[in-house]
Order: sequence, then C-alpha cells, then structure tokens
Amino acid sequence: MKKIMMRLALTALTLPLFCSLVFAQAQIPKFPDAAASDPVALGWMQGFPPKAERIIRFGDASFYRFPALRWSFSNISQLFPLVPVLRGDGPVTKLPRAERQDLDAVAFTTLDGRKMNWGESLSANYTDGILVLHKGKIVYERYFGAFSPTKKHAAMSVTKSFVGTLAAILTGEGKLDPTAPVTNYVPELKNTAYGDATVRQVMDMTTSVKFSEVYSDPKAEIWDFARASGMMPAAPNYQGPRTTFDFLATLTKKDQHDEAFAYKSVDPEVLAWIMSRATGKSLAELTSERIWAKLGAEHDAFYMVDSIGAAMAGGGLNTSLRDLARFGEMLRLDGYYNGQQIVPRAVVADIRGGADKGKFAKAGYKTLPGFSYRNMWWVSHNEHGVYTARGVHGQLIWIDPKAEMVIVRYASYPIGANAFIDPTSLPAYMALAKHLIGE
Amino acid sequence: MKKIMMRLALTALTLPLFCSLVFAQAQIPKFPDAAASDPVALGWMQGFPPKAERIIRFGDASFYRFPALRWSFSNISQLFPLVPVLRGDGPVTKLPRAERQDLDAVAFTTLDGRKMNWGESLSANYTDGILVLHKGKIVYERYFGAFSPTKKHAAMSVTKSFVGTLAAILTGEGKLDPTAPVTNYVPELKNTAYGDATVRQVMDMTTSVKFSEVYSDPKAEIWDFARASGMMPAAPNYQGPRTTFDFLATLTKKDQHDEAFAYKSVDPEVLAWIMSRATGKSLAELTSERIWAKLGAEHDAFYMVDSIGAAMAGGGLNTSLRDLARFGEMLRLDGYYNGQQIVPRAVVADIRGGADKGKFAKAGYKTLPGFSYRNMWWVSHNEHGVYTARGVHGQLIWIDPKAEMVIVRYASYPIGANAFIDPTSLPAYMALAKHLIGE
Repeated sequence: MKKIMMRLALTALTLPLFCSLVFAQAQIPKFPDAAASDPVALGWMQGFPPKAERIIRFGDASFYRFPALRWSFSNISQLFPLVPVLRGDGPVTKLPRAERQDLDAVAFTTLDGRKMNWGESLSANYTDGILVLHKGKIVYERYFGAFSPTKKHAAMSVTKSFVGTLAAILTGEGKLDPTAPVTNYVPELKNTAYGDATVRQVMDMTTSVKFSEVYSDPKAEIWDFARASGMMPAAPNYQGPRTTFDFLATLTKKDQHDEAFAYKSVDPEVLAWIMSRATGKSLAELTSERIWAKLGAEHDAFYMVDSIGAAMAGGGLNTSLRDLARFGEMLRLDGYYNGQQIVPRAVVADIRGGADKGKFAKAGYKTLPGFSYRNMWWVSHNEHGVYTARGVHGQLIWIDPKAEMVIVRYASYPIGANAFIDPTSLPAYMALAKHLIGE
Repeated sequence: MKKIMMRLALTALTLPLFCSLVFAQAQIPKFPDAAASDPVALGWMQGFPPKAERIIRFGDASFYRFPALRWSFSNISQLFPLVPVLRGDGPVTKLPRAERQDLDAVAFTTLDGRKMNWGESLSANYTDGILVLHKGKIVYERYFGAFSPTKKHAAMSVTKSFVGTLAAILTGEGKLDPTAPVTNYVPELKNTAYGDATVRQVMDMTTSVKFSEVYSDPKAEIWDFARASGMMPAAPNYQGPRTTFDFLATLTKKDQHDEAFAYKSVDPEVLAWIMSRATGKSLAELTSERIWAKLGAEHDAFYMVDSIGAAMAGGGLNTSLRDLARFGEMLRLDGYYNGQQIVPRAVVADIRGGADKGKFAKAGYKTLPGFSYRNMWWVSHNEHGVYTARGVHGQLIWIDPKAEMVIVRYASYPIGANAFIDPTSLPAYMALAKHLIGE
C-alpha cells in the first residue's frame, strides 16, 4: 500500500508539476511520439502474462502514467468497476459511408504558427480514434494503438456534456427547475458551497466552490475527491469521506456564485445527484432511457462508478467512437435522429445559444477566446456556430452546424491539459470544415 | 484495511464454518426466505445514496454476504473489473416462445423426501432467473429480485464448462494436444503440481494438487488464490503472488494424477493459460470468437479479471439468462445453431460420453451418484443423457437431450455449496422433463 501511495504521489507531483512548469514557458515538453508510444507495439498488457514492466495494474495508479495511459483509456473496464448504459434492443442506426481520400492533405496553421496537415495532426494529437461525419455520412474514420471500432474509450470530461444535456432535457420537461435552489433536491448540501446555489448555476458552472483541480498541488481538493470516490487507493489510516456523495457534502464556498465560469468536476456530480433525486433514477438509467437506447447505438456504453456504485458524472463515461458520433450527429440535427425527437429542439437551441461570454472570459482560457459554457458544453460563438464537448488528454465532440460536420475524437495525449493539444486541433477542425464546404 | 480484513475473516470463517457444521448434520439452516431476502424490497443499493446498512461496497467483501449477494450476483460489474466478451455485430438469434401455464404445478419429491412443485422450487432455490427451452422454444421464463432480462448474472463455476468446451474445440482442431504435458505450453509450471500432468488430466480435473477449497479453513489455498488474483484485498504487508499466473506457479502435487476426479478452480485457470499460449489469444477473445459471436447473443458477456486483466477462468463469466440459454441450446443441437456448426459434433459427443465414473465416485458427491466429469462438464449418465454445468449458489445449465429440454438458472442461494440446493433442484428438473415429454 505504501508503494502504491508513493507511486501515486509521484504521479500526482511530477507529471502535472512538470506540465505546469512547461506550460508557464509555453513550450511543449518532449515525449515519445505517437508511433513510438504505440501501446501494442510497446507490448503493454500483451502476453500471458505481460512482461512485468508492461503491466498496468488494477488498484494502483500505473494506468494513468504515459505511455501506459495510451492502453488504459481503451481498456478502462479492466481497471475500474462500472455500470452499463444499455443500448436497448432496437436495431443499430446505419452510419452511411462516403469516405474521402483528400482529407489527410488538408493544410492548416497551428495556433503556435506551424504548418501542418490533417493527417499529421492525428499523430501530433496522439489520436486513438477519430471519425468525421459530413451531412451524416462517414467521410473519415481511423483507429490507432489499443483502440478499435468494438472497444470503448474513456470520454473523460466529455461525460459532463451528457450530464448537462440530460439536465437541460429535464428542465425542458419541468422535472427540474433551473431557478430552484440546489437544496430543494439535495437537502444534504445545505451547509456547503451549494447551500445558496441554483440548479442553473450548477448547470453552467458559475458556482464558486473551493475546489482546486491543480494536479501539481497535493493539497488540491481533486485528490480528496479521488480518494473519496475510490478512484485512488486511500491510505490505511484514511478517515475522510468514502463516497462521492459524502465528499460533495464537505465542499465550502469560495467567492460569490454567478460571477464567473469556474470549471470543476464536482458540479456535474452535484447535477447528477440533483437529477437522481428529481427522477428517482440513476445517471446510468437516465443516460440509457433518454439518450443511448434511442440512438440505435452499436454498443452499450458504461460509466465508471465510485465505491458504492454511483456513476462518475464528471468523467466516467466510456463509449465506442461510432456511438459517440451518433450522439453528436443527433445534436447537429437539432435532436431529431433515428426517426424520433430524442433531445427537444429547444434544448439544442439553448446549448447552441451559449451563456455569458464575460463570465467565461474571467476563467482565462487562452485557446478559447470568445467562448461561453452552457449546459456543460463549450460554445464557440464563432462564424460556424461550433459547440464542443471536451475531455482531458484530447477527448472531443465537435459539432459544426454551418459545415454540417461532426468530429469525434478519442486520444491519449501525454499531458492532462487540453491547452497543449488545442494548438494542433482547433485550427485543424476549422480547416477541415471549410474544406468540406468549399469555403 | 484492518476493518476490511476483519470482515473478510468473518465472512471466510463464519458462514462456511456454519455451513460445514450444518452440512454434517444434514439439515438446512434457517435463512430469511427468498421473498424476505428480496434485495430490491430490502433496499440493497437503492437510493442516492443507499442507506448505510444497505451499501455493498467495491473493494471489500460485503458483496458476498447473504442477503447482500442476492444483489451482487446481478451487479458484478459494479464490484469488480472486467473484460468484455463481444457478441459481434450479427443479428440476435430469435428464441421463439410457447409459454406454458401448467409447469408451476409439476410435482416432485425432493431428495430429502418432501413434496414440492416446480413453482415452489423457484423460491426454495433463491432463483434469480430461470428459463426453460423445450424443442428450442421458451416454455418458461421468470426473473426475481435484482435480476432482469437485460442484466448479466455471475455464472460462477458454470464458467468452467465454457473453458472446457473451448479446450475440447481446440483439441479437435489439433491446436491443443490433450496427451501433451502441460509444460509443453506453459514451461513456467515445470516445478509445480502440473509439472508431470497432461492437458487431458487438467481438462477432466484428474490432476492431484494441494489445493483446498474448504472455505472454513483460513489456511486453505483458496484464500491464497483470492489474495493473489485480487478478488480479496491483501494485507498491507502481503508479499505473496499478485497474479493468477504467479499463484498457479506455486502449486504443489498432492498424490498421483489420473487416479481420481478432484474438483478445483485452479485447473480451469491452468487450462485457460494453456489455451492462451497455444493460440496467442486471451480467454475472453477465444470465448467471443469461438462461441459468443456465433450464437447471436443479445448482449456482450464479460469475465471478471484479476489485477492484471486475466479473465477468471474458474468462475468469472457473467451473462444474460437468455444468452446462457442460447449456449445450452446450441450444445443440445450437437453444436449446430444460428445457421452454423459452432461446436464440432464430435466435441459435443465427447462431452456427452463423459469420463470414468469410478474416478468421479472417489470425490464423494452424495447428490451426484453415477456421474462423471468430462471437459469440465458434469455428466449424469442417466436415462435422459443429461449433462450439466454447475456454479456455486445455484448457477446452472441443464441439458436433457432425450427431453429436448434446456434449463438455465441463475440463483443466489444463501449457502455456497450446491449439495444444499440439489435436493430441491435435481428432481425438479427430471420431473419437468418427464412432464414435457409425457413420460
């Protein structure tokens, strides 16, 4: 156990500390590139048993070390307990194909001024899988490393956009009152940061909570959360909360709510708790009933769960790539997909409309100028009306209404900060969109 | 951690000790009955969060306590890491329905002399789900407690029969030589009990290995296996093997091989290792490619895995009830199902033919007179030619060729010893078969 804790401490301290130092210098650190870190070629978890130095072990933190995470993100079920998100028994929705050979050559300039093309961007971004839909047809689909069409990949914080969409559906139906205090649904949060917050503030992350996700700080609350939720082994003498629910009830207020966007993984956890109290259903049940079982997904999805089976609303979803594309395409089509209105048009319009750009700007995201954050989606307010779901290490849904394009990407970028991967990603998406519509 | 270990020790010592004491007196102990232990009615894992006394926690042994196990067996994914067994992308095989209302009244005499009918036997056996196919049609299907048609249930040692079937398929193809020494495939086992054993001895469990599954003995090797495989938390100062593979390499010989049937969970683990070395594929891949993806299953299945992702061949499989029925029906049809020969006819014939009854008799199974054990199936040699897969706490596939009947049952009987559940089960199956064919 001590050994595990030491490893965790090392992981916790070194990589993110390194990142933040490098980040400050605005330089991308040197890691083995995508080909050199291919998890299958490196033999990660290959063989019976794998070589000792190539084992990624359930119950310690080795899974999250680069390059091991290049395998882990495609094999989360072997590392964590989970709850399924059922696809139901309907037929699989067809994704027609019209693959194009001209896309790899699409050129763009990275945010830091380098020339690059689409094909090159895939390895630069440590892509595990990427799929582009244009007018509903697959024009591009690639898999790398340990990922494949039949596997499920960690969506990380893309999960939050599912949670926000579900909440917006429920508010549209009147099952959830966005103006109501959080405590109307979860009285246990009365004496916490959420004691005077509204549901809407949680949905748009304008709550002000003492919750640091600065991974380089061992005292940051993210580590308390990890221990409480069971994502990280706790020390033998650990006396703190042992569930996500109990942890949420310890959070205290920072400044005033509603003044600024403040990204934090505890808000979707609170929102999921609110929804479960409002509906009597778990997040996995809601996701299946309202979204997954209606999409005609190819595969069940799943959520990683905490030590008492509560789905991790901040980052626990795992899906196949094509099914993630179906979800994105459904939203692009204003919620109508597979012969039915899955998400109300008004909900999609509400997401697309975004929120207060001034409040967002206060959070200081240098790669996302002019954005806002609504229903747990990142809204660009750009000329294509793009909105996007983003997860750490490169997970993505990119919906471009004007170009009638949806991109979904799963990745295992070495650093857990999308500011490193945005420079070779965001301009690539815009270049591809413009290429597809001849702009 | 100490608390967990204490709980484990209690579970390990009290229930099985109780069982063995009671067993000796040939009396069934008093537990709350099936209705009174219904996990949903009792509120196990219901609510956000569940009540503290109704929580079943990932990472400790609470899941295995009755009545908690009545919930756990239908929700294993929330308690353990797993690897999927993919169903492929073919259509689901139809299971036609011809449900009969007369079966609940079918009467029989229990092995201990009581009158009972089929309907009563379901609660007596703490049935979670049961499905009867007659001539390929569903004549009876019931779900109870936490189980449902869309959930997957722990198959426990029914898993072994999948492993044995796969090995028989591979031997039929010449990919595995049953007469070869185990060490031809796994040299690591040279200085172990398996150092002079053949593949066939492992397939039929006639190896002689110092491996006790007497749960009431805290020094029994089954506990070492549980710690090594990660199924049970190890003590902080634990220095023993940390994988199933490493544990298997510690096993020593007891008497002479090939003299007696000796049931033990390590044999299927060794067999899975042999198969992976022979084919380069994991047990989950083999199960999917050779069986599951050909059946037209409704759902992916999954195996629980050890701390390095190795499927638990002794008892890790989880499936839906209908998919288990499809597997049984495929075998009843001599391996031909869903428009293809999935298991060679000769393999099914080899299973049905059984093995040496004399060697089986030495193991002393009082409820299974005249049986033998072949390719990890229990073969009755009775007038209907029944062969069966059996898992602790009541898991079952029962194939009755003469009656053209397949019964699959998932259950959560309070005691982990099928000798307690056989008296109200085995005669019920025979009575049902005879009723269906008017014998």
